[in-house]
Amino acid sequence: MKKVVVIGGGTGSSVVLTGLKNSSNIDLTSLAVVTDSGGSTGRLRDEFGFLPVGDLRQCLMALADGDTQDDIRDLLLYRFTKGNGLQGHNLGNIILTALEDIKDSPGKAMEAASKIFRVKGKVFPITEVDAHLMITYEDGQQLIGEHFLDDHSKGGKKITNLQLSKPAPLYKNAKKAILEADTIVVGPGDLYGSLLPHSLVKNFKQTFKKSTAKFVYVVNLMTHFSQTHDLTAQDHVDLIEKYFGKYPDVIIINSGKIPPTLLKTYQDQKEFPVIDDLEKKAKIIRSDMISKVVAQQNNNDKIKRSLLRHDSEKLANILKKI
Amino acid sequence: MKKVVVIGGGTGSSVVLTGLKNSSNIDLTSLAVVTDSGGSTGRLRDEFGFLPVGDLRQCLMALADGDTQDDIRDLLLYRFTKGNGLQGHNLGNIILTALEDIKDSPGKAMEAASKIFRVKGKVFPITEVDAHLMITYEDGQQLIGEHFLDDHSKGGKKITNLQLSKPAPLYKNAKKAILEADTIVVGPGDLYGSLLPHSLVKNFKQTFKKSTAKFVYVVNLMTHFSQTHDLTAQDHVDLIEKYFGKYPDVIIINSGKIPPTLLKTYQDQKEFPVIDDLEKKAKIIRSDMISKVVAQQNNNDKIKRSLLRHDSEKLANILKKI
Repeated sequence: MKKVVVIGGGTGSSVVLTGLKNSSNIDLTSLAVVTDSGGSTGRLRDEFGFLPVGDLRQCLMALADGDTQDDIRDLLLYRFTKGNGLQGHNLGNIILTALEDIKDSPGKAMEAASKIFRVKGKVFPITEVDAHLMITYEDGQQLIGEHFLDDHSKGGKKITNLQLSKPAPLYKNAKKAILEADTIVVGPGDLYGSLLPHSLVKNFKQTFKKSTAKFVYVVNLMTHFSQTHDLTAQDHVDLIEKYFGKYPDVIIINSGKIPPTLLKTYQDQKEFPVIDDLEKKAKIIRSDMISKVVAQQNNNDKIKRSLLRHDSEKLANILKKI
Repeated sequence: MKKVVVIGGGTGSSVVLTGLKNSSNIDLTSLAVVTDSGGSTGRLRDEFGFLPVGDLRQCLMALADGDTQDDIRDLLLYRFTKGNGLQGHNLGNIILTALEDIKDSPGKAMEAASKIFRVKGKVFPITEVDAHLMITYEDGQQLIGEHFLDDHSKGGKKITNLQLSKPAPLYKNAKKAILEADTIVVGPGDLYGSLLPHSLVKNFKQTFKKSTAKFVYVVNLMTHFSQTHDLTAQDHVDLIEKYFGKYPDVIIINSGKIPPTLLKTYQDQKEFPVIDDLEKKAKIIRSDMISKVVAQQNNNDKIKRSLLRHDSEKLANILKKI
């Protein structure tokens, strides 16, 4: 039984978790960021003062298992299209917010949710502290709130620093998972929104340094105008090294062709395929990992989601071989 | 394996279901009314136009089973104390409302919920049609909406008629359960709010007549000022006979002493113990069934709930002997 820890949150982690969860010899733990501040999650965070749950929910959904997994996924994914105050809210977010209140601890809430929804593996927040992301841009502007990372009007500017609005210690079960891991997979996912924030948590870097796990980094398919505009693959890796304090042992990067129609849609948003200029400083795996299924934008969801995804199965097959 | 069908909804049915669910030789089905119109359920009903779920949720909670039953109960019982639009809402109601939308059928929503939350037994709405209760009082006033049955200002007046606001056919799985039952337990529960409405559903009476099940009626402990003011036990039974079209085979009535402090609280609301004047027209079981645990009123819940309950175990022991 190999212990695999997936570091990220959101859709990128879902892809990895979905692909790996059915392997009988893999014990999966997903660590998710808790700094999101937009959409349904942001509203709940503002109104309740609890840790935001959007990324945790996505990991939970990905790990749903057994004969009710489709119903559980539908339930956690459901978004209200009407109802005073409910409209636009995601039911999974509402459920996890209630569990945080019931259990009086985000970590325990996730343990309860994992049991109730019978997920295969574990899902933990990287910290139990409700901190915001502080983003500094090259022009000196500083903004607080993860939602600015999805704000197209802030796009094109280089981000020069990322920190947390207050000290947030590493959640004890997350620490344990990192120390016991055989493999740690970072990415795919929003570099500034889902990956780097983990490294800002107090004691994360020391713990990550102590870990003897193989460190795998999965490079994103596309740049993100308001986060990683103009960054090449090597730029991504260098930032990962800078924040995580370690150079990856293995880097996985797509070499498949992105469908031209999708490229056009991305181009309109000033987003482009990440250029592979990787230096030979680690083991590099180049493979076609483009998903044939184009993700649908949910009309009730005001946040733009990526249309192009890594293929769960293709990525999992590569990871299993490592 | 004896097939037992519990007809009611709400707290009364919960007591019966909780007591019986651990019997290995009982196959339980709970049929619940879907006419509630007050509180969280009423708000959701108004905003979504789906079948109200409050009574179904209570039955589901009572049947939660396995090592996560406490967490599942906490989850379904949770009431939001803050949040724009969420405040006052019950999470279980929100979840079931979403499932109604996902499954496009209240019956299928309950089947999914039963699987997701691993309940022991089945829970069905008595009808899938969203009808309201029409209540006629002795002074000729007619009001539409189950919430009037909890309205103290409408108390003391005799209810002379109860009907549904539109034709509502018996749900097919409810019909099947009634026809296959060995025992049907009606009550305890609000006579006009939870028990008699079942009989108003189209084809219920014919189906109930065809059933060869032993018909057990559990008399309430107390009168309800806005529903059953001044009614004796025999009055309750006569109404059950009038609406259900059959005289019960077995009547269970409390003979235990109600704690004086609780009696005082009820008296202040003009509510009194139901007087046992039962005629010997059926098998009558008199026994102490007072619960030693006094139910707590949830401060976030605007609807007054009964403080005094039947004891689950005591009632179950009697039912098991039948």
